[in-house]
Amino acid sequence: MAEIEFSQPAESPAILGKYSYEINQALSEALSIKNISLLNMLRYHIGWVDVDGLPRASNQGKGLRSSLCLFSCEAVGGSINVALPLAAGIELIHNFSLIHDDIQDGDMERRHRPTVWANWGKPKALQAGNTMRVLADLALQKEVESIGNFNQIAACSLILTTACLDMIEGQYLDLYFEGRTDIDSIKYLKMVSRKTGALIRCSMELGAIVGNADHETVGSMALCGSYMGNVFQIRDDYLGIWGYEKNTGKSIGNDIRKKKNSLPIVFAMEKASVGDKRFIQEIYGKSYIKDDDVDHVMSILHKVGAKEYVQELAETEAALAYKALDEAKLIDGSREQINELIRFLLYREN
Amino acid sequence: MAEIEFSQPAESPAILGKYSYEINQALSEALSIKNISLLNMLRYHIGWVDVDGLPRASNQGKGLRSSLCLFSCEAVGGSINVALPLAAGIELIHNFSLIHDDIQDGDMERRHRPTVWANWGKPKALQAGNTMRVLADLALQKEVESIGNFNQIAACSLILTTACLDMIEGQYLDLYFEGRTDIDSIKYLKMVSRKTGALIRCSMELGAIVGNADHETVGSMALCGSYMGNVFQIRDDYLGIWGYEKNTGKSIGNDIRKKKNSLPIVFAMEKASVGDKRFIQEIYGKSYIKDDDVDHVMSILHKVGAKEYVQELAETEAALAYKALDEAKLIDGSREQINELIRFLLYREN
Repeated sequence: MAEIEFSQPAESPAILGKYSYEINQALSEALSIKNISLLNMLRYHIGWVDVDGLPRASNQGKGLRSSLCLFSCEAVGGSINVALPLAAGIELIHNFSLIHDDIQDGDMERRHRPTVWANWGKPKALQAGNTMRVLADLALQKEVESIGNFNQIAACSLILTTACLDMIEGQYLDLYFEGRTDIDSIKYLKMVSRKTGALIRCSMELGAIVGNADHETVGSMALCGSYMGNVFQIRDDYLGIWGYEKNTGKSIGNDIRKKKNSLPIVFAMEKASVGDKRFIQEIYGKSYIKDDDVDHVMSILHKVGAKEYVQELAETEAALAYKALDEAKLIDGSREQINELIRFLLYREN
Repeated sequence: MAEIEFSQPAESPAILGKYSYEINQALSEALSIKNISLLNMLRYHIGWVDVDGLPRASNQGKGLRSSLCLFSCEAVGGSINVALPLAAGIELIHNFSLIHDDIQDGDMERRHRPTVWANWGKPKALQAGNTMRVLADLALQKEVESIGNFNQIAACSLILTTACLDMIEGQYLDLYFEGRTDIDSIKYLKMVSRKTGALIRCSMELGAIVGNADHETVGSMALCGSYMGNVFQIRDDYLGIWGYEKNTGKSIGNDIRKKKNSLPIVFAMEKASVGDKRFIQEIYGKSYIKDDDVDHVMSILHKVGAKEYVQELAETEAALAYKALDEAKLIDGSREQINELIRFLLYREN
């Protein structure tokens, strides 16, 4: 894989910036529907307003999925206009899943701010998530107008629904794995490919479909998205343990405190000594984990080389993501931009 | 309204029984998708299996919405086959909302059994609800095959999405009203028409559309469904206070214990004396409500005639539901069946 330059982290990859105006426009339209009293909670979650509904300096997420959808459409020679409703819909579905995820995990913070449920309570936050999901459906219905090709719309609709089902099932498995210490890395990666991979894959796939790519190129883009999803989540697991607080909004060892069965822990439970495994099991059985315990688990991770393993696995998946595009018919410059994005996902600090 | 016979309660109205085979078939197909580990939770919720996944004597819900959708299609002269995917989808959407509703309200029982969250915990139950919702989408996509009329599908899809949004917003308002004592009955009924009315209305409307009814008949069926939703919810509020435990699975005064701002309470807060209002306010401000307090609130409801008011309002809405069909073009016998169903909704004991 000498042709792939993964050594230098990209500060801000072009793909994540170039469509932000269009995406924000589409999201803002989707979130301006009348007669919905909890819109404020949704705008808060997106990062546009504070808890009282007053405008604030935006601190939005990366818009990875919507950007990938538009990029994928353009890369196969399509115009982004036909993919815009899909991109907005996918981004809203992603945010629906984040709002529910925070409730389920009991996470009080996201991007350095209180989560929706931390502000408004879990029952209302649950409903805010459901509303986000319906607004996604409404945004997607605009795709009908912008495409008008019945078979294509039906196909896209089925792919998106299936991706949603995969994502939700993956999140369920993640919950199911929580507190268990008998999950191996194969099971874990399968879960990841559903929880995170399915929607990222779908973004690339749908962008290519509405951009009228040939069958093979659609498949390549989908596969690339699938691997990219793995890169994203594996790096996320890395940051959940070794990320710096100022970047991620989470403290070091955070996922240990939350008894998350993230990849480093899964790996340690395969590789550590019997005594160390038993120690992790005991810690994960406690209702509250002390700082000393976190430090001890960190030292076990260090002993088994979990940090290196996790990052190397992310690198392997990154190489596969790039390789998936070998046979894709893409316009000039697209490959370089994907390469840059993959590098970013691989080395990002937040 | 001398032409309407609302005096005799119907034991089991024909509309709720005649399609149960087809509906169960469609639901069972929707809930037999592979590779979904939480399907068991969904089958449990529907009432087909016990908590361990073993078959049990079924104790399903009424299937009101799906039955109405099929009935509406047939009543305008259509074949139920074209409405079946819609009916199944609507029933699943309704059940998605019930699973989430139980989480939000903290309800431990539904139809005499522990709720999904009471068995599996709130995080997993939340995800079960979301899965139910996606299975609804998948079921609905079969509508594409059974209709094939692009404009009609697009129209149905928009109506259903809008109904979902209304339902979710209505549930949110219901949460928002909880614990507040400044909600008047107009605000309350508006909330009800969204929370419960929107999906029932949509069931009737969509059945008529895919049954190829004329524009006016579609409108009549929609309006009838809207009023029927009000009848259903108002009687639900009645049963929440005055229902018998063996029928509803809830004890007398249950909604008071849960500090629900249901219609009888809303009415009392408009009509009661200053002292009685203050008493209810105090009770609703407590974290735990004693039996004595429940009895006292019940006596206030009695004093202001809340029971009679609530039932009379349900009767008014029932008459409007029936009247909405005046101009509808329906096949013979349909009106009588709707009349029977409305009577059932008006006097049901569970």
